[in-house]
Amino acid sequence: MTMKLFELAGAEPERRLSPYCWAIRMALAHKGLEVETIPWRFIDKEAIAPSGQGKVPVLVHEGKWLFESWDIAQYLEQTFPDHPSLFGGPQGVALTKYFVNLAPVIASHAIKLILVDIYDHLTETDKPYFRESREQRFGMPLEQVVANREALLQPFRDSLLPLRMTFRSQSFLGGDQPLYADYAVFGVFQWARCISPFQLLAEDDPVAHWRKRMLQAFNGLAQSAPGYD
Amino acid sequence: MTMKLFELAGAEPERRLSPYCWAIRMALAHKGLEVETIPWRFIDKEAIAPSGQGKVPVLVHEGKWLFESWDIAQYLEQTFPDHPSLFGGPQGVALTKYFVNLAPVIASHAIKLILVDIYDHLTETDKPYFRESREQRFGMPLEQVVANREALLQPFRDSLLPLRMTFRSQSFLGGDQPLYADYAVFGVFQWARCISPFQLLAEDDPVAHWRKRMLQAFNGLAQSAPGYD
Repeated sequence: MTMKLFELAGAEPERRLSPYCWAIRMALAHKGLEVETIPWRFIDKEAIAPSGQGKVPVLVHEGKWLFESWDIAQYLEQTFPDHPSLFGGPQGVALTKYFVNLAPVIASHAIKLILVDIYDHLTETDKPYFRESREQRFGMPLEQVVANREALLQPFRDSLLPLRMTFRSQSFLGGDQPLYADYAVFGVFQWARCISPFQLLAEDDPVAHWRKRMLQAFNGLAQSAPGYD
Repeated sequence: MTMKLFELAGAEPERRLSPYCWAIRMALAHKGLEVETIPWRFIDKEAIAPSGQGKVPVLVHEGKWLFESWDIAQYLEQTFPDHPSLFGGPQGVALTKYFVNLAPVIASHAIKLILVDIYDHLTETDKPYFRESREQRFGMPLEQVVANREALLQPFRDSLLPLRMTFRSQSFLGGDQPLYADYAVFGVFQWARCISPFQLLAEDDPVAHWRKRMLQAFNGLAQSAPGYD
């Protein structure tokens, strides 16, 4: 039975805009697993109610409803041990946890550059929820959060220095081939790409070169998704 | 034949103040290898000349002069494959490279908080070299770099968020036991501890708890070195 993955979608069902759903989609491709993806919106709580919580990604496999991208990634590794490893062993799992935590930190900086662009791509029914919850979080209107984004761009790029240094000497965080650490971090850049034309990375940045390699992985899985290039 | 490790030392020979020497000292302990450490100062270029370059750590093993902490760590892994692994496999080596790059980035922030304290602990013969080279790098007197350090402390702590999140759910970057990723990052905190009473971490910070675990590792190897607690 094909797995099902609920993914946050915009007004266009094919526009998938969650960093963490993207991490899992890449992980499924890494494992060579077929998946049926289902567009999901913030207000569709009922559709994923069997998972016992209200956020995506939610993966349904053999009647099990799994959530929380880090838990799903480890489930995939344990359930499909003969498929290519996402971690490279138990120590690799532990080392990967840092990158799983790095992703939301990068996203928390990036969102100040693209918050309105997310809003613009949501369904009309999701927009009120998104505006209210995010304006409460930031304590100001969405438009005011990004008003200063040109000034925030260089500090954002500066914060990526350890990634930049790493991609000067190797193709992926995982070495010659990507691992889940790559997917976790790439999810943030793919999320940004899907909903914003704002250029987060300079073209000559080694992080941008890595991003391009990730876009092209698995026959261009991420590249072929609707987004801005 | 016991290995020899040249380590940057202060005016007191036992005060060792290089983040990268500390990473290697911890790695040697992890591998269970005996080492004779030799105090070295910036101006002692001749002592390490056989390595073909002028920086420490320099490790001498069976007539081979090794330098560059990342290269030394990999040499130890390859030369002593039956001793506890520093990386947990080839993918672990690749994942660790990020942390090796993270360490100097953390150090580059931390140094603005403790630069004068380093200077104060150097030999009289090293002080002129250090002041000149660092004042050239920062474009201002050493004292001016740290004048603002109270204001820089919170941004420094904020920059450690992905580490903080990780140590909320596991004891070490490597999981239940430390790996070279831990030693690379810990080196920075041990360097700071050796030369400055300035408190980089809040006491209730999970990063501080990890630091304490690292200080206690290998029968308190790092804890027993001269430093400020």
